[in-house]
Amino acid sequence: MRELLQEKIDIISKELKKYIPDFDVPHARIYEAVSYSLFAGGKRLRPVLMLLVSDMLGGEQSEVLPFACAMEMIHTYSLIHDDLPAMDNDDMRRGKPTNHKVFGEAMAILAGDALLNKAFETVSAHNYMDAKRALRAINILSVSSGTEGMIGGQVIDMESENKTIGLDELLNLQALKTGAIIRSSGVIGAVMSGADEGEIRAVDEYCLNLGIAFQIQDDILDVIGDVKELGKPTGSDFENQKSTFVSLYGLDKAKAAVEEYTKKAISALDIFGSDAKTLKELANYLIGRKL
Amino acid sequence: MRELLQEKIDIISKELKKYIPDFDVPHARIYEAVSYSLFAGGKRLRPVLMLLVSDMLGGEQSEVLPFACAMEMIHTYSLIHDDLPAMDNDDMRRGKPTNHKVFGEAMAILAGDALLNKAFETVSAHNYMDAKRALRAINILSVSSGTEGMIGGQVIDMESENKTIGLDELLNLQALKTGAIIRSSGVIGAVMSGADEGEIRAVDEYCLNLGIAFQIQDDILDVIGDVKELGKPTGSDFENQKSTFVSLYGLDKAKAAVEEYTKKAISALDIFGSDAKTLKELANYLIGRKL
Repeated sequence: MRELLQEKIDIISKELKKYIPDFDVPHARIYEAVSYSLFAGGKRLRPVLMLLVSDMLGGEQSEVLPFACAMEMIHTYSLIHDDLPAMDNDDMRRGKPTNHKVFGEAMAILAGDALLNKAFETVSAHNYMDAKRALRAINILSVSSGTEGMIGGQVIDMESENKTIGLDELLNLQALKTGAIIRSSGVIGAVMSGADEGEIRAVDEYCLNLGIAFQIQDDILDVIGDVKELGKPTGSDFENQKSTFVSLYGLDKAKAAVEEYTKKAISALDIFGSDAKTLKELANYLIGRKL
Repeated sequence: MRELLQEKIDIISKELKKYIPDFDVPHARIYEAVSYSLFAGGKRLRPVLMLLVSDMLGGEQSEVLPFACAMEMIHTYSLIHDDLPAMDNDDMRRGKPTNHKVFGEAMAILAGDALLNKAFETVSAHNYMDAKRALRAINILSVSSGTEGMIGGQVIDMESENKTIGLDELLNLQALKTGAIIRSSGVIGAVMSGADEGEIRAVDEYCLNLGIAFQIQDDILDVIGDVKELGKPTGSDFENQKSTFVSLYGLDKAKAAVEEYTKKAISALDIFGSDAKTLKELANYLIGRKL
């Protein structure tokens, strides 16, 4: 699994490099700022998921690759803006100083804007087999990262800081903030591979449950993980007084929930038979992760 | 002219309202923040230009309207982020407190992100006559607002603050920062109306020159607008020590340049014969504007 993931990560990183030119332009610093965060060694979970879904369904990699890159750009922009002094005010990310610590606040705001914008430059530049299908995928991408997706979740997260929220609110927050683009990553992989509506729903169900398991596992690692491996201080949710699944239910129940959602994710793929082997392995692999 | 412009502004404002729902959601505040700036009484020059180009070419309004709305969203997001404390640190915009003054810095960052994102939700949600053409227009939109367009211009602007720049640098800055999305507004109007490549080039030439004339006129108004009201030339560009066409060449040469670029814009439309009447009037109208 680790080798396969690395292979996919390399494909995505190589492709991403193509979109960040080495231009000799007066505004070259924006490309430096963008590259700094885009190539900071992220897990690239979302685009990898998209490629693996496409592989399962026999999709053409070239059809899905622009969307895989766009998804990583959107994920990265959200981290840059999240880290800003006016937001979470984080100094470190993935073991390195955050974007605004290196390039200043103004440039970090623009670097985030640039990455969000470039996601749509990227998905609109390709000559697709089916332009209508690509438009649908662009819509899924943008809705999942917008006010009824990731941004909506960020707003709820911001407004619920320093107060305890209930499980329903927490699940809603996470469904939007982190869940929406994990789901859309899989769904776009399916759509761009020409999957039928039933297959798309099954992939969506897999990603929905995988996303919840992934988030609870993150909360667990935030408590028990160590600084070296995570690249960010552990216990930061606790320090920021954020409600998490662990703070509401304790470590044992959280671990049981990760198992349960992972099982649900895996069984959603049963309709694909043995073709789903890799994605099922991915779900189990993510439970075992240390970062 | 004024009546026609108001009619187009009303069409756009009404359409924009559809995209900002009155949802009863936990994250409703993001919609408030977005609406505050989107309905702050802007001139809506870019989307109006797009609709007028489409009218000249006999385009279907429904094909171009999503792009007109998206363009206004992108223009508005850029103003919200430009006004932030880390950027221009402006307290007032269009006679009202800026977005971050009302909603706080974190929400203003998210409101900008939300508008940029919503632009692409908007253009990808429509069932177009020709999906390939729509993808091309999405690419023109995103490139013109990205690092080789508006954002690139913002970076140069930021990096050239408090130092004098030459005419070439100034023209490059403005071509990117304000020119790129004025050009793309016209070009998208042409593309979505099924114009041929020669017609698209003519519209582009018109918008290119119109954009330069508009910007120099802005610089002039920044100086003489204040003369009338305050009795002394204390324009904000002057205070911020920004180089402008006026600071480099003086008022008389700047006025002559506005005339010259307007003439160039108008003659670019000659291939359209009498169909170009309204767009030619628009160019002359913009010279006469006081705001």
